[in-house]
Amino acid sequence: MTELTQSAEMQKFLDKIAGLDQAGGNPRLKQISRKLIEAIFETMDEFDVSDDEFWFALNYMAAAAPEYGLWAAGVGIEAMLDIRNDIKDREAGIENVTPRTIEGPLYVPGAPLEKGFARLDDGSDEGELLIMHGQVRDADGKPLAGAIVDVWHANTMGNYSYFDQTQSDYNLRRRIETDAEGRYKFRSILPSGYGCPPGSNIETYLAALGRHGKRPAHIHFFVSAHGQRHLTTQINIDGDPYLHDDFAYATKDDLIPEVTHHEDATKSGVEGVSGPYAEIEFDFTMVKAADHDEEHESSRARVEALS
Amino acid sequence: MTELTQSAEMQKFLDKIAGLDQAGGNPRLKQISRKLIEAIFETMDEFDVSDDEFWFALNYMAAAAPEYGLWAAGVGIEAMLDIRNDIKDREAGIENVTPRTIEGPLYVPGAPLEKGFARLDDGSDEGELLIMHGQVRDADGKPLAGAIVDVWHANTMGNYSYFDQTQSDYNLRRRIETDAEGRYKFRSILPSGYGCPPGSNIETYLAALGRHGKRPAHIHFFVSAHGQRHLTTQINIDGDPYLHDDFAYATKDDLIPEVTHHEDATKSGVEGVSGPYAEIEFDFTMVKAADHDEEHESSRARVEALS
Repeated sequence: MTELTQSAEMQKFLDKIAGLDQAGGNPRLKQISRKLIEAIFETMDEFDVSDDEFWFALNYMAAAAPEYGLWAAGVGIEAMLDIRNDIKDREAGIENVTPRTIEGPLYVPGAPLEKGFARLDDGSDEGELLIMHGQVRDADGKPLAGAIVDVWHANTMGNYSYFDQTQSDYNLRRRIETDAEGRYKFRSILPSGYGCPPGSNIETYLAALGRHGKRPAHIHFFVSAHGQRHLTTQINIDGDPYLHDDFAYATKDDLIPEVTHHEDATKSGVEGVSGPYAEIEFDFTMVKAADHDEEHESSRARVEALS
Repeated sequence: MTELTQSAEMQKFLDKIAGLDQAGGNPRLKQISRKLIEAIFETMDEFDVSDDEFWFALNYMAAAAPEYGLWAAGVGIEAMLDIRNDIKDREAGIENVTPRTIEGPLYVPGAPLEKGFARLDDGSDEGELLIMHGQVRDADGKPLAGAIVDVWHANTMGNYSYFDQTQSDYNLRRRIETDAEGRYKFRSILPSGYGCPPGSNIETYLAALGRHGKRPAHIHFFVSAHGQRHLTTQINIDGDPYLHDDFAYATKDDLIPEVTHHEDATKSGVEGVSGPYAEIEFDFTMVKAADHDEEHESSRARVEALS
């Protein structure tokens, strides 16, 4: 059976399916479709996939559609996009001082925009207080005033506002405009690691692969500035048990900043805060944009806040 | 870039993604997943798929999920399942006198069950009157009494009840139990060919491949009988312009019966009908079931009638 897909008859059938015998249509889509459909045919051959197995898979994929963002992360495609972009940059001699890493499916556009400093949490979650700050610079080390640090992260349950209906609008999501020295600062709480929802299609699939759907605690960033390439990245919270066992393969050594635990904010002169807190200092180094397109995030579908 | 997926590092990454380094899970699913995810990685390499292209494809696939049944037909996977089953039967020396062909995504279980004869249409569609009849036999030619001929087809607009809200419940859908001589008979109207809904995701995709989403006019059948292998098949209406240009690749020469056009039903002695009508005679030859599982249709998800 395994030679069936490679038979002249089936190769001709695949050409037909992909529209290669038709004048119209998109030549690139035809070639890509042909390759992927051939891979499905070959898999059916090689593993002698039964009708019931195929329909089970199709039923699963249809039911899992709302979770495709998690699926792309879990099967490493989102990491693969980064690996490929990293290789291209290396080949072009472009250095990513601050590494890129995956966006994930939980960004929500339109978070409140504040200047220089923002408080991200609404005060309802009693996590460890976090002060994070740093500078946004261009590739030459020049501070970038007016850059936008768009930050989002989970609460102490590992859940994100909008995907968790118990949280207030834009909780743990803010856009911060850097000051004249390119500095940003925010107050929040230390997040816990996200996990794929128990009983979700993606979690069921990962379990069937013998895998878990957990991520280490992390904080997401979009960093953008005029004339600079849009940066999609994250930092991980050091010490998390899943730090090097992320189901989405997004951990990078240069994205694990030191977390300093202070005993008393008052002594450190942190305004409006007293008692113990954690501090993270992290700078973002941007890459000059080759064109205007590079200044923007990818065109993936994102959840819209409807409030 | 094309060698990236085959590098030792990426091969190890693929093993990890598929859970091959984990003790738990389903070994077959791991192997199948690894092959398909590798094919996606290779496609990204070979065609230098951009981030935006990938997210466009993922967004499309998520939006198209309700149409995956049409997609499986349109990219030839449903036909491929039949081709593989035909090869297996040939290798096992099993003859399919009545060929199998695809089910499609428009079956609805639970149609009214009638004995020997049924009228399928509710009288609201003024198509050409059709009388179809024949015999269900086993592989030795012995008539099978009590077999169930479960028939469904489109109206003169090419639309199916339940998927077309203007039609009455179970219009053009009936189950007919064969009589003592294994005979079935029904009165209906000649259907027109189905086309993927204009503007649907599948139709957009097929157009981008330079293809159409049309089928020739056809009538679907599930035929089942105790101890016999479940038969999923269709007949095509001879003369249709799409007869050998079916977007679902389901046409088979032995499934194009002659259509006889009579001038006067009264003269032919057809009960309850007067005036011109079309007649199709078609017999179904079953294959002995190897086990009880073979007596039933595949486990694909089907639309349920909620009335």
